[in-house]
Amino acid sequence: MTLKNNTEALRSGDRIALAKTISQIEDQTEEGRQVLSALFPYTGQAHMIGITGSPGTGKSTLTARLAREFRNPSVDIQPQRVGILAVDPTSPFSGGAVLGDRVRMRDLAGDEGVYIRSMASRGALGGLSAATDSVAALLDAVGYDVILIETVGAGQDDVEIVRLAHTTIVVAAPDQGDDIQAIKAGILEIADILVLNKADLPGVDRAERALCSALELAGTHRTFNDGSGHHREQAIELHDSRPGWRPPLIKTIALSGEGTVELHQSIAAHRQYLVDGKLWDAKNAARLTSMLEKQLREHLYQNWQNRVDQKAYKRALKSVLSYRVSPYQAAIDLLKQPE
Amino acid sequence: MTLKNNTEALRSGDRIALAKTISQIEDQTEEGRQVLSALFPYTGQAHMIGITGSPGTGKSTLTARLAREFRNPSVDIQPQRVGILAVDPTSPFSGGAVLGDRVRMRDLAGDEGVYIRSMASRGALGGLSAATDSVAALLDAVGYDVILIETVGAGQDDVEIVRLAHTTIVVAAPDQGDDIQAIKAGILEIADILVLNKADLPGVDRAERALCSALELAGTHRTFNDGSGHHREQAIELHDSRPGWRPPLIKTIALSGEGTVELHQSIAAHRQYLVDGKLWDAKNAARLTSMLEKQLREHLYQNWQNRVDQKAYKRALKSVLSYRVSPYQAAIDLLKQPE
Repeated sequence: MTLKNNTEALRSGDRIALAKTISQIEDQTEEGRQVLSALFPYTGQAHMIGITGSPGTGKSTLTARLAREFRNPSVDIQPQRVGILAVDPTSPFSGGAVLGDRVRMRDLAGDEGVYIRSMASRGALGGLSAATDSVAALLDAVGYDVILIETVGAGQDDVEIVRLAHTTIVVAAPDQGDDIQAIKAGILEIADILVLNKADLPGVDRAERALCSALELAGTHRTFNDGSGHHREQAIELHDSRPGWRPPLIKTIALSGEGTVELHQSIAAHRQYLVDGKLWDAKNAARLTSMLEKQLREHLYQNWQNRVDQKAYKRALKSVLSYRVSPYQAAIDLLKQPE
Repeated sequence: MTLKNNTEALRSGDRIALAKTISQIEDQTEEGRQVLSALFPYTGQAHMIGITGSPGTGKSTLTARLAREFRNPSVDIQPQRVGILAVDPTSPFSGGAVLGDRVRMRDLAGDEGVYIRSMASRGALGGLSAATDSVAALLDAVGYDVILIETVGAGQDDVEIVRLAHTTIVVAAPDQGDDIQAIKAGILEIADILVLNKADLPGVDRAERALCSALELAGTHRTFNDGSGHHREQAIELHDSRPGWRPPLIKTIALSGEGTVELHQSIAAHRQYLVDGKLWDAKNAARLTSMLEKQLREHLYQNWQNRVDQKAYKRALKSVLSYRVSPYQAAIDLLKQPE
């Protein structure tokens, strides 16, 4: 298939072409890059939504519920086409979970307006996040309005999801003990919307209190005189980078669908907030700048590898492996060599 | 302080100099790099041990127990100096947990043979794993025999820990439902030793069965004729890269210390296995090669940034931000420009 035929097939909704192109992107083939380049002008439309949380919080079930809500909105808005990228080896979308979960996801698969792709298998090999960027851009270009990116939400992946997503949803669940602590300690800082799922479980009140106090701790409080002579405390914005947005806490029961409508509305509100404050464009610009930098880094290294004197490289490596020269110094020395 | 004075202070066990140098490494200062280069010949001695698992599995408490066991071995071996790097925002070592946990860790801090450092604060800013490599190398150079690196164990961090550690311990706990699934789906593949902690909780038998069957699923089985006419099934090696090592499943109760001795012995056995099979050296070589590559990539990009025509760069970026040229094409075009 020529590049032109292929991009036309993709734009017209050919799912087989889509699956094939995603694989090419994951494999970092030249074909994949060419398709992405050709379709790039069609990107920048989709709402990228990161859904992150520990295993056991039910975020996959919630993702499925949310996808259905975008497809068949309870309120009077247009249905949206939904792409789901599961960047989580434990996700039912990637086959890493119990059968019941997989069955719950399956009915989504029959909907032409939903495209589900697991990117888990690349996890153990690295290079996952680079491909996630590109696959999300592809889904954007071929007309998916909303792209739900499910990650396990820990460590480096958090940084990536915040960079990639317009809206980041952090999912917690009661009865996870230390998990609530996890949210206090850092994950909260990336949440645009905080979800307390499994709200029918015992311990939900305790979890809600913990999350609320964590939200308050994460925020900055100032005391001011309200004119009546009394000092009052007022919560100000959580983050300087998010003036005017205070992450809501939404209770859901993903299994039954409870709270999905509220979550959907909250996502719409966050989108509106981003657009109004020109943060939507700023987020897109930051993502594209980062994608350009990644490409530059990759090309610079590959170009250098292609032209470096292999003997000199092997000598440098040997000096490192024998603990004579540090990797820091060896790199500097090697790059000083005439090419 | 001159570089020479500083490296001598570090080698003689100066903890203030150590803390300062670690900060310099985290901040990627030139001073930090110089110290690392000067001390590099002293590296390559320490046993790097990754301890990974979801929040709530009790891996921090287990890490503390293990540190004590290395310091005061129950069997007749030399005490070892222990460095602990908590690359996990939820770790009690990084202050991200309940007070009880922090108290349990504190008695370790009074021991001159133990150095604890949290690297959590860098998590949200990225660049964490590069610094972890270097800080682990520094602890190695200043005489810590064992370096316990605690990570939350999900996504990209897994790849990093396997690359960095000689021995990777995956910690699970009963009553975590989906968590056991998580182990099935990918984390098991990185485990050199599998720990089922909180073995006093209800559900431990179910969890043990799940883990055992997951271990079997992860392995490859072959049926062969044992000569008696019967076909027997024999588990063969889990991974081609680990011939002869079958990850043991060890039950522990970190809170009471139960199972710590067995875990310690298992770690010693894995070390011996690595040394005997020349895998110890191979792992060190792989880590150093990767560190050299990282340095090269970083220098190549920085050097290019320093010499690129900023106007050309801005033009390229603008063409991307206006969705006219893809980041893939823009990078290629930009690197083709005469410098």
